Amino acid sequence: MGPDLAAIYSPVKEGMGQVEALFQELRSLARPDMLPLLDRTLHYGGKRLRPALTLLAGAPFHYQPRTHLPMAAAMELFHTATLVHDDIVDASNLRRGKTTIYSQWGSGPAVLLGDFLFARSAQLVASTGNLRVINLFAEMLMAISASELVQTLTTLEARLDYDHYIDWIGAKTASLFATATESGAVLGGAGAAAVPALKDYGHNFGLAFQIVDDILDFVGQEQDLGKPVGADLLRGHLTLPTILFVTHHPQGQELKRALLEGRAEAEVKKAMALIPRTGIIGECYDIARSFSEKAVKSLEAAPRCPARDSLAGLATYILERRR
Amino acid sequence: MGPDLAAIYSPVKEGMGQVEALFQELRSLARPDMLPLLDRTLHYGGKRLRPALTLLAGAPFHYQPRTHLPMAAAMELFHTATLVHDDIVDASNLRRGKTTIYSQWGSGPAVLLGDFLFARSAQLVASTGNLRVINLFAEMLMAISASELVQTLTTLEARLDYDHYIDWIGAKTASLFATATESGAVLGGAGAAAVPALKDYGHNFGLAFQIVDDILDFVGQEQDLGKPVGADLLRGHLTLPTILFVTHHPQGQELKRALLEGRAEAEVKKAMALIPRTGIIGECYDIARSFSEKAVKSLEAAPRCPARDSLAGLATYILERRR
Repeated sequence: MGPDLAAIYSPVKEGMGQVEALFQELRSLARPDMLPLLDRTLHYGGKRLRPALTLLAGAPFHYQPRTHLPMAAAMELFHTATLVHDDIVDASNLRRGKTTIYSQWGSGPAVLLGDFLFARSAQLVASTGNLRVINLFAEMLMAISASELVQTLTTLEARLDYDHYIDWIGAKTASLFATATESGAVLGGAGAAAVPALKDYGHNFGLAFQIVDDILDFVGQEQDLGKPVGADLLRGHLTLPTILFVTHHPQGQELKRALLEGRAEAEVKKAMALIPRTGIIGECYDIARSFSEKAVKSLEAAPRCPARDSLAGLATYILERRR
Repeated sequence: MGPDLAAIYSPVKEGMGQVEALFQELRSLARPDMLPLLDRTLHYGGKRLRPALTLLAGAPFHYQPRTHLPMAAAMELFHTATLVHDDIVDASNLRRGKTTIYSQWGSGPAVLLGDFLFARSAQLVASTGNLRVINLFAEMLMAISASELVQTLTTLEARLDYDHYIDWIGAKTASLFATATESGAVLGGAGAAAVPALKDYGHNFGLAFQIVDDILDFVGQEQDLGKPVGADLLRGHLTLPTILFVTHHPQGQELKRALLEGRAEAEVKKAMALIPRTGIIGECYDIARSFSEKAVKSLEAAPRCPARDSLAGLATYILERRR
């Protein structure tokens, strides 16, 4: 966590420490055999954005440690579960500079560890005793898992569409952020206007976050990312820079043909080198910024307070991050 | 479903039809791409024991379709999710005579389809609006997923222990049956004595069920099982017949050494042929019968009625089944 992030998290500093303690508690629920796998995954995180958003979205209303803390921890554990499973789906060897569970222990333990983290997140959400957030969490599970499954089965041509991309990152990434902020607001007893506004904040924040993630895959530094630059495209993930390149850049047609004809490797490497030198990265940042600004605008529905300022600050932070 | 089972299910016949309709509804939530995978898994089932137990455990009290039906459907969908994931863990090609999702579509779609079924089961449980069953479900998720993970990481020697085996099938299989019957009773408004009795019924039923399953892997017919006989042992799953054989049969020592030394294949085939000709299968059936009888005994806490008779009948049915 960088110094900027520590300042942004300061209104919920104590809670963030208690969320970490809940992760550590998970170690005591596990038999010794599982500890190396758990330790690897519990350190996956780093920024802990999702728990921070849950707490920050509750703080402007009535912050309730008994429910906000398990909800915040659940959001991170669920997120971690999806990473462990995604690494099987993508056959990824590295994440944040470390070997993945999939590559070090194999598909079987990775499937089961993901299921275990999933289970713990469900248990923590259930422990809030709040039916409204339990239902939000269940709806989010459906949205994410349905979209992940559909994406693997969607044709390459369909995945090269901007609207498809926004829908896809909306379901895959933004739904988790939206659930974090909506549940934080609900558990804080926010009013009927503030709850959907905080949900919208999370949704637009999530879109901006994912677009920047996809940009960094083109222009980031390997030591910052902890995985090879260009991994997405090499693996067939078509993200915003690629989509803008093939849909409205004159030199993108060759890449499109190569992708559609399945003879992509050489063309992909050419595109990887070319895209950062076009105006496309700037266009992508403009789109991310517009979602981030929409997120900040939604915050007007929350009372002015340090936590609200932090939510606004985070929406800028994610545009500037290098990893 | 055999004719015996149809008679046993008759007190909840209408509900069982409505549970099937909930499975079909899942098709309408899914995009067309997913239908072949869903259809393959929704037909996995067959006996639908878990939903039947949920409904039958509620019927002696106050059967409430609005909550019993989604809970019953959730138990089957969650069970199906675990099968889809287990087939990745075990690299299984066949289940109930059909190609598995894992072997036909690969690990990625199997991981994601399991997650989707899991998500839908959580959503259905949340829809009951009953915090007590929501918590039971969450506890069960933890018990099952922790035990599955631990089992893959437990040494072969430890897995050759009877007590370990009973704990393992208790967590892996019986916890689902116990949650089915306990939640059925809770949703039916059963009293403080009846709820734990119905839970015990499900737990002991589940132990008997799993032991018979493990026996059938030695003495069943391939066309009944829909998978090769002996698949468990060939895959390194150490179940009751093997455990009794190596722990107290004079000829079992050779198999134990072979397993421990990892040169098992020839010895395993010898054991597969030998075990059904020893008294071990009979001993295993005796153990299964004692759990089944314990299950029936627990039913005394429920009012006498056709559904209670069906629960007793099911506990006998599972001892006699051929698949």
